Amino acid sequence: MKRFKFVLNEKEMPTSWYNILADLPEPLPPPLHPGTGKPIGPDDLAPLFPMALIKQEMSTERYIEIPEEVQDIYRIWRPTTLHRAWRLEKALDTPAKIYYKYEGTSPPGSHKPNTAVAQAYYNKKEGINRITTETGAGQWGSALSFAGACFGLEIKVYMVKISYMQKPYRRVMMETWGGNCIPSPSPDTQAGRDMLAKDPDCPGSLGLAISEAVEEAVGRDDTHYSLGSVLNHVLLHQTIIGLETKKVMEQIDEYPDIIIGCVGGGSNFAGLFLPFVKDKIEGRKPDLKIINVEPASCPTLTRGPYGYDYGDVAGLTPLMKMFTLGHGFIPPPVHAGGLRYHGMAPIICHLLKLGLVEARAEHQLGTFEAGVTFARNEGIISAPETNHAIRATIDEALKCKESGESKTILLGHSGHGHVDMAAYEAYFAGKLKDYNYPQEKIEEALKDLPKV
Amino acid sequence: MKRFKFVLNEKEMPTSWYNILADLPEPLPPPLHPGTGKPIGPDDLAPLFPMALIKQEMSTERYIEIPEEVQDIYRIWRPTTLHRAWRLEKALDTPAKIYYKYEGTSPPGSHKPNTAVAQAYYNKKEGINRITTETGAGQWGSALSFAGACFGLEIKVYMVKISYMQKPYRRVMMETWGGNCIPSPSPDTQAGRDMLAKDPDCPGSLGLAISEAVEEAVGRDDTHYSLGSVLNHVLLHQTIIGLETKKVMEQIDEYPDIIIGCVGGGSNFAGLFLPFVKDKIEGRKPDLKIINVEPASCPTLTRGPYGYDYGDVAGLTPLMKMFTLGHGFIPPPVHAGGLRYHGMAPIICHLLKLGLVEARAEHQLGTFEAGVTFARNEGIISAPETNHAIRATIDEALKCKESGESKTILLGHSGHGHVDMAAYEAYFAGKLKDYNYPQEKIEEALKDLPKV
Repeated sequence: MKRFKFVLNEKEMPTSWYNILADLPEPLPPPLHPGTGKPIGPDDLAPLFPMALIKQEMSTERYIEIPEEVQDIYRIWRPTTLHRAWRLEKALDTPAKIYYKYEGTSPPGSHKPNTAVAQAYYNKKEGINRITTETGAGQWGSALSFAGACFGLEIKVYMVKISYMQKPYRRVMMETWGGNCIPSPSPDTQAGRDMLAKDPDCPGSLGLAISEAVEEAVGRDDTHYSLGSVLNHVLLHQTIIGLETKKVMEQIDEYPDIIIGCVGGGSNFAGLFLPFVKDKIEGRKPDLKIINVEPASCPTLTRGPYGYDYGDVAGLTPLMKMFTLGHGFIPPPVHAGGLRYHGMAPIICHLLKLGLVEARAEHQLGTFEAGVTFARNEGIISAPETNHAIRATIDEALKCKESGESKTILLGHSGHGHVDMAAYEAYFAGKLKDYNYPQEKIEEALKDLPKV
Repeated sequence: MKRFKFVLNEKEMPTSWYNILADLPEPLPPPLHPGTGKPIGPDDLAPLFPMALIKQEMSTERYIEIPEEVQDIYRIWRPTTLHRAWRLEKALDTPAKIYYKYEGTSPPGSHKPNTAVAQAYYNKKEGINRITTETGAGQWGSALSFAGACFGLEIKVYMVKISYMQKPYRRVMMETWGGNCIPSPSPDTQAGRDMLAKDPDCPGSLGLAISEAVEEAVGRDDTHYSLGSVLNHVLLHQTIIGLETKKVMEQIDEYPDIIIGCVGGGSNFAGLFLPFVKDKIEGRKPDLKIINVEPASCPTLTRGPYGYDYGDVAGLTPLMKMFTLGHGFIPPPVHAGGLRYHGMAPIICHLLKLGLVEARAEHQLGTFEAGVTFARNEGIISAPETNHAIRATIDEALKCKESGESKTILLGHSGHGHVDMAAYEAYFAGKLKDYNYPQEKIEEALKDLPKV
């Protein structure tokens, strides 16, 4: 009998996260203070984050225990399932074996609650009852609202205005979990008011929404801020994905030749590959290929310069060393809202620089085509973000068909697309187009990088 | 360690469906020919269904094997998980134990593909390449489109016009799986044209959409018809839910005192309870309480007369003995679109008549309130239909709190509500109201029942 699904027993769920900082061949360039340009210390972050998360951000401990209370929430939907894509393999007529780790069965339908739940927990534990955040496509705001409901926290979400308009149902999901969602730019903050004065019709951006959420958190003692991607502690929490995958693959005596995932801030994919990249760093799997897939319309890793930049538009966040399209970046209106961030997790950028992972950019029409093929074979209608990874997976599987190699491909499937059907509607109606990101904007970004 | 989820190993998935017709204490009243009023035979149904399904409709074999090809599709998402609702129990401060069997992890997000996949398979096997159907809220049309993609069938879906307008994304889901979805009433059929002539703005009804789909299937040799609920073979396919539940509860040495589910045509809930009702029929569990929950705005089981009625508006389907609000019923615009059918599965009606199950009606505001409580504790945002069952579950759990009894409640959770956020939006905005179904309409239905 063919087996379609591989999932750990609840008791086998990993009880620690994996911290790549313990195993990097070269240390990660430190974040710098936006005012002084000097490496930041824990106190600099204290207005924004609980001390437990600040410690995780800087820790070099290899394994960090998952609190019992967080495990109990995880177990509402975790461990998640590793699927064998038998029907897709057959449709592609490929000798490749395709596995996908599916995060779409969580309450909001994506990987995001893996860190949202942890962040809500640590805030609550340190006496914080209110968290601000930003959201692009709405996945992160939903996940944090859900996490807020779990621990009784008030959640305020600044949602990029264009997404707020295009995706009203994401807002309603947040409200169902008790979250408060408003469009950014908003009149609630200086950053928002400045932008509205400059351009009342500004569609917003993730960078601006971050500025607003950070500003409010800094200005209020009862309020912290939470970020859904990019930071080390976020990637740390997401490693539950890769740890589960590795364990269940060991049980069936498999190991991937290629790991593929989509990257916006990078957390879902890093969560999957970090426990595997360890094997590459330590020389056990020198040929392991790890492909970060980003949109061609937002080609951070493939075309952006590498340097220190702010995480937000207003320059309130620490400077992080990363590939970046510039903190003033306003993304083209592609439908993969979760992939439209100007920067990228410093850990991923560092690994790319070290040659341990690679990057690829995909145009949106090709990603939707791949997503439809996936839906018609594997059933799942995927988020537009995930379709980027599916595109690359299908391409790698077709290369195997050509070469006759039976490679094992592991796809990180970050979530379902049930709340993104407007994007599919536009695709079927022929209303979507591909965007070639202009070279002069890349050069502009390079010039605009803060001098440190 | 508390366990949150109970799920069979893939190899333990039941390989046969359970057929209640083998175990009924009194035989089910037969369906009658709409023209002659005499019991129908297999040939009468041949223009609509493949012979394998007609045989299942009438079979008294206790277990019917699930074809290997259908099992292979099931295993994309099955076995599904039985959850222990620890957090909801705690929030309600109840000594009751609440379990819920969750069908929302299927590709379209509900129980519907359990039968859609089987029906598509049997049609394909008998050389049919095209199926028509109707859909209300869109769950069924989505599921059949998905099933069509699995076996390469063309699917045409008549969608109740008001839902077609209110839920454009459901149509897009169908199209993503390759289905063709049009609003009903449509100009494609006589039934549709007649209605449009009478009332060009007719919002449609499930009964009318059935008429259209049946008419087209009868008129074309290459086309069959498929129904997503009500019929015996549909309930049969859904018993995979109850068989899995029973098996996994045996493994943890549990048995429900109360089973609760929502009913529109009745298939999701019958699929859960039928393998359990067997124990009641055979005297092993005389006190087992089985509660069918319907909307107060469409009170088929709780207030409708019991008699022979058509399944559709035009009177094309066989007459079935059931509780009914009359085949001319136009439902109030409540948001639980899947529960707005005028009739009910004859098997459920028969069991209700025999006193083996009971029925309860819930108003919509209370069901949304229950759904929000569920979401904030168990994470899952549920379909408005499912919220009816959640309402009754919470009420039963609160009764336990009062009485101090630690009953075991089993909730049939038919699907997630990610595509139904417009309903939640209306609820939060205070735009929803409760409908008291008028007594004179009940009396009208009674008078209009066809004489047989």
